[in-house]
Amino acid sequence: MSENETATGGRPGRGRRPATEVRAAVLTAAGRILLDEGLQALTFDRVAREAGASRTTLHKWWPSPGALAAEAYFARSRPVLDFPDTGDLRADLIAQLGAFVRWLKEEGAERPVSQLVGAAQLDPGLARAFAEEYGRPRRELARARLRTAQRAGLLREDADLDIVVDQLWGALYHRMLVLKAPFDASVVPRLVDHALHGAAPR
Amino acid sequence: MSENETATGGRPGRGRRPATEVRAAVLTAAGRILLDEGLQALTFDRVAREAGASRTTLHKWWPSPGALAAEAYFARSRPVLDFPDTGDLRADLIAQLGAFVRWLKEEGAERPVSQLVGAAQLDPGLARAFAEEYGRPRRELARARLRTAQRAGLLREDADLDIVVDQLWGALYHRMLVLKAPFDASVVPRLVDHALHGAAPR
Repeated sequence: MSENETATGGRPGRGRRPATEVRAAVLTAAGRILLDEGLQALTFDRVAREAGASRTTLHKWWPSPGALAAEAYFARSRPVLDFPDTGDLRADLIAQLGAFVRWLKEEGAERPVSQLVGAAQLDPGLARAFAEEYGRPRRELARARLRTAQRAGLLREDADLDIVVDQLWGALYHRMLVLKAPFDASVVPRLVDHALHGAAPR
Repeated sequence: MSENETATGGRPGRGRRPATEVRAAVLTAAGRILLDEGLQALTFDRVAREAGASRTTLHKWWPSPGALAAEAYFARSRPVLDFPDTGDLRADLIAQLGAFVRWLKEEGAERPVSQLVGAAQLDPGLARAFAEEYGRPRRELARARLRTAQRAGLLREDADLDIVVDQLWGALYHRMLVLKAPFDASVVPRLVDHALHGAAPR
């Protein structure tokens, strides 16, 4: 098989697609399977079939179905991760975290992300893929918005932005993964106020 | 087999042990296996053998090896979870979280707790057991210390103590499970200061 045939995913008779298009189709199919049916359903065979790509291509691009799942999850959740920047940090954080909670609780993302983080604890390769393809890019998006706020004087100069990320999104993961405590978007304003102003008397 | 033989774990010729003693021996053996070798090594067979108990007893007391592992993890980590109460909330939180980080990073608890939380995402029974046997009792211990501080006026009356727990311990779980970002006890004072005073200008 030539390089080109591999990259285009081998759909004979339907013309060669550029690699970026095949890649996008694979991520879309993987994201759909992950969200609708969960991590167990996501195999290279199934994704290749639904994306009209070859298994060889998938094996070449991703070390494991878990790694593909992690990247597909990031691609699929990408629109939910965008930050408004209205200049009102509290409102923007509430909007962003609220969208994240609805994505988890109403749009079906809680199961796949729990499964991905769960499986990652038993599979170091998946842990690396999930952190690299989702966790850290996602943290970087949040950090960028917080940095803008810090430059505008809305966060203290010595605030540790990584800790702020841990205390906003990490707090939600804690309830979801460790405590298995129910929550909805109504917790978000309190969570943001705690992250901004703390629990001690002012 | 009589009720009593079952409860004493059936070690013929060595005398009958009271059920509480058998239970303690089982939890000790399970905790040792979990910490030394990880979740995969913890089977009813292995624990029964090492604790001198019968498999029947174990099956009767725990629905699954995972549920036993969750309770054993709580029993084993119990001493690390205790709170000093010196009246200085910041110092007490730093001492407690510092002990938790050392327990994870230096005493080998990171692997088993990650495995337990991980496996729980793929096994609802284990998720329930882990939340009931570890996550929530652990949160209750933290909440009790925070409540004392709140009554003493060291936390605001309207502070949400569950959120404070999420923003202290949950932040560490976030780094450990989701970001796979390295950390050590040096992060703890900053984490506590953020939870107490927030990231916004005072």
